[in-house]
Amino acid sequence: MQFSAQEIAFILNGTVEGDPLVSVNQLAKIEEATNGSLSFLANPKYEPYIYTTNASIVIVNNDLVLSEAVKASLIRVENAYSAFSVLLEKYNTIKLHKTGIEQPCFIHPSAQVGENVYIGAFAYIGPGVKLGNNCKVYPNTYIADNVSIGEHTTLFAGVKVYFDCVLGNNVIVHSGAIIGSDGFGFAPNADGTYTKVSQIGNVILEDNVEVGSNTTIDRATMGSTIIRKGVKLDNLIQIAHNVEIGVNTVIAAQTGVSGSAKIGENVILGGQVGVVGHISIAKGSQVQAQSGISRSIIDEGKKWAGSPAVSYANNMRSQVVVQRLPELEKKVEELVKIIAELRKE
Amino acid sequence: MQFSAQEIAFILNGTVEGDPLVSVNQLAKIEEATNGSLSFLANPKYEPYIYTTNASIVIVNNDLVLSEAVKASLIRVENAYSAFSVLLEKYNTIKLHKTGIEQPCFIHPSAQVGENVYIGAFAYIGPGVKLGNNCKVYPNTYIADNVSIGEHTTLFAGVKVYFDCVLGNNVIVHSGAIIGSDGFGFAPNADGTYTKVSQIGNVILEDNVEVGSNTTIDRATMGSTIIRKGVKLDNLIQIAHNVEIGVNTVIAAQTGVSGSAKIGENVILGGQVGVVGHISIAKGSQVQAQSGISRSIIDEGKKWAGSPAVSYANNMRSQVVVQRLPELEKKVEELVKIIAELRKE
Amino acid sequence: MQFSAQEIAFILNGTVEGDPLVSVNQLAKIEEATNGSLSFLANPKYEPYIYTTNASIVIVNNDLVLSEAVKASLIRVENAYSAFSVLLEKYNTIKLHKTGIEQPCFIHPSAQVGENVYIGAFAYIGPGVKLGNNCKVYPNTYIADNVSIGEHTTLFAGVKVYFDCVLGNNVIVHSGAIIGSDGFGFAPNADGTYTKVSQIGNVILEDNVEVGSNTTIDRATMGSTIIRKGVKLDNLIQIAHNVEIGVNTVIAAQTGVSGSAKIGENVILGGQVGVVGHISIAKGSQVQAQSGISRSIIDEGKKWAGSPAVSYANNMRSQVVVQRLPELEKKVEELVKIIAELRKE
Repeated sequence: MQFSAQEIAFILNGTVEGDPLVSVNQLAKIEEATNGSLSFLANPKYEPYIYTTNASIVIVNNDLVLSEAVKASLIRVENAYSAFSVLLEKYNTIKLHKTGIEQPCFIHPSAQVGENVYIGAFAYIGPGVKLGNNCKVYPNTYIADNVSIGEHTTLFAGVKVYFDCVLGNNVIVHSGAIIGSDGFGFAPNADGTYTKVSQIGNVILEDNVEVGSNTTIDRATMGSTIIRKGVKLDNLIQIAHNVEIGVNTVIAAQTGVSGSAKIGENVILGGQVGVVGHISIAKGSQVQAQSGISRSIIDEGKKWAGSPAVSYANNMRSQVVVQRLPELEKKVEELVKIIAELRKE
Repeated sequence: MQFSAQEIAFILNGTVEGDPLVSVNQLAKIEEATNGSLSFLANPKYEPYIYTTNASIVIVNNDLVLSEAVKASLIRVENAYSAFSVLLEKYNTIKLHKTGIEQPCFIHPSAQVGENVYIGAFAYIGPGVKLGNNCKVYPNTYIADNVSIGEHTTLFAGVKVYFDCVLGNNVIVHSGAIIGSDGFGFAPNADGTYTKVSQIGNVILEDNVEVGSNTTIDRATMGSTIIRKGVKLDNLIQIAHNVEIGVNTVIAAQTGVSGSAKIGENVILGGQVGVVGHISIAKGSQVQAQSGISRSIIDEGKKWAGSPAVSYANNMRSQVVVQRLPELEKKVEELVKIIAELRKE
Repeated sequence: MQFSAQEIAFILNGTVEGDPLVSVNQLAKIEEATNGSLSFLANPKYEPYIYTTNASIVIVNNDLVLSEAVKASLIRVENAYSAFSVLLEKYNTIKLHKTGIEQPCFIHPSAQVGENVYIGAFAYIGPGVKLGNNCKVYPNTYIADNVSIGEHTTLFAGVKVYFDCVLGNNVIVHSGAIIGSDGFGFAPNADGTYTKVSQIGNVILEDNVEVGSNTTIDRATMGSTIIRKGVKLDNLIQIAHNVEIGVNTVIAAQTGVSGSAKIGENVILGGQVGVVGHISIAKGSQVQAQSGISRSIIDEGKKWAGSPAVSYANNMRSQVVVQRLPELEKKVEELVKIIAELRKE
């Protein structure tokens, strides 16, 4: 795709300064841009780059005053940052624009497939599946029996959705994510073996949820594992059976949430955090990476850190002293000696 | 699937109290059940729910004495909990009942496929593979050359099994799990590069093993990585080359076991635990989530916690003091001052 | 595959001692070898095994002096260890020798496929893909639009590569690894929801990189996430957007590297390590398993441990005192009492 400065200015309702016919075929940061790239300047801190950049076109704010000559053609707009975001979004939409049904794929006769969908080769749409309009199911994806998927939802290549799960609208699931595998439930027997507890519930992903690559979300034993509207899950996260994650909560990579934990709205969990089972985390809580949440958090909107986690501030204070522990111990040993002498006297 | 109270009572050898013709099509917990659901009451703590539940049918113990009227039809049995488990199991068996070979799939002419199997579309059965009777190979699954699989084993969608691996009977492998990828072995060269050490061993999963979704089990450098009978592995676990895991051991999600570690029988490892290479963990050990096992555990049946792990009790005691460290340090500083004054005197 | 002692001696330029016609069909360690196995003896520590081993053939050093009779046929060579490595490598090459294009697979007409490649069934080669000579693309693998792949590169079954990514020569990617999924970027809105930030960059894997199974490497927001030459990544690792990993760096399983972190050359990160975003780690650094790197490491070639990580030595010293904390606290309490008494006097 090739666009000229005047075409882009037209889209953005901006004005061209320099050659209106110069054209670009990619987007780049101003400090890394090569010839043929479109970039932007919004933060005044980056202004020096505009005099040295190799970008062919740079989007700038209307009120930018240049102190030197520039090589690039400029497009002046009200707000360079949001104008660039609009282009980024458009670019991505074009990149990810796929429709039609590639062959061979497997669509069970009893499945209901909406309009304007993309179904890639080697995708599997099982019996009783409902797939809404404008969905994209990339190659090698598996959608098992009776799964229901809303509209404008995208499953990237290789996603697996087990039977009976429900996905809302505008959901994005990245490659390799597994939705609805069995919860980890086993009843111990007297002889040391375990009997599997059947897992007959499902997983519900509400609207606007995004699930990262190779993340796993287990189905409930009974009932549902529920990921509420707007939740964003990064890669390689484990969500166990019967967990519920509140609206707009964000979880970073490699975090694990154990069975039946309830996480509130607008919570932020850092990467590699562990949450034990059957506890709840209050709305607005923020948990530092690598922490371990071992009991319920009742107070809303607080910061936590450490394993086991305590308040962020307390953890910081303790960690600082941990580093001084050898000196502290030495000091105590000296005191013991001194006092022994004092007592002799 | 729709079942009436009298049909279910017949299966369970129970007696109906109320309308024998009312029917249900799903299973649910008594406190969450909606009209058309079957539920159960076993724990006396939940008795109040029987007067308010919307379940259409509830399985109860023979000796339950009601203090109020109930809306639901009851089925009285000897043991409500185990009767319900039987239904759960039956329900799941029906849900997961698949047989036949879907097209297109790839079955190499030299592969030996047993009777009564399910092979989903886009599954790949490589040269020399032996697949026993009653196995289920879901769509998009890959079974490489010379893999041998026993009977009644299920590989869910997207499982990948590398060449020469051996799976026993009644094994369950969940979606996205990788069995037999190369062990992580590299020999350092003088120029800073690494030479790959060929990994020619395999992985053996014995009978009744369950492997969670997106778990990875590497093949041995030589010999076998062995997962013994009845082992249960949760999701996103890493098992490195030449590891051996003893009978009936259970490992929670996101735990990693490094190369050549030997884990005994009936061990329980919590989530996000790390085990270093070339050590052994004694039979019956229990390790808390997020712990790091850095040396062999010789004593059987003990509890461990922390990173590096120490006895559970010692770790608890230390962690409590860590929280008080800032106060402890302050106290020591005060003592230092006081003693300096005392000495002056 | 069956080879006689004299055939192997010929390959290795060695001499047979014993029956030259005895044959083997597998490789094994000397202490585990069964009849029909080929083994080797290099480390003098293992010499006792040569008198008891069931191996049919053992490769030994020219200068080995036997003190007893041996059952196995021996092949004497200059360096038994490197001779065995040569065979290991040859064995593996034969095992993994695949060529040709299996059907059904999907190769877009606009894709350029080199010579002597293997493309397994249900593999997907998208529009504009360039796949070099001697590459192997195993079954169920997905290569999206405009991906460029060099020569002698192997993608095992089920790998997913998103659009625009670039893979060099001699790259190995294990099953289930995801290359180029979206970076985790969201802009918070006033109402608590998040707007997705489009991720239009790519991932570059340079020559001789190896990526473990189910590892995820996210595409850059703009520009590239770069894995430099010779980097070895183990299983279940998370590499976030815009990360750069230096030449010959090795990272163990389940480690996570956050966005825009820069890791130097010849770094070694243990398993389950976490690296926060936007920091750098100096060349030659070594980080212990389960550590958390929370700030940039400037000094080259040092060892680090703990979460937050400090120098390896300091962490060791502190951890030792942590174990003695309850006793230390008790000691301080006693001192407080004693001093209170001393002061009374």
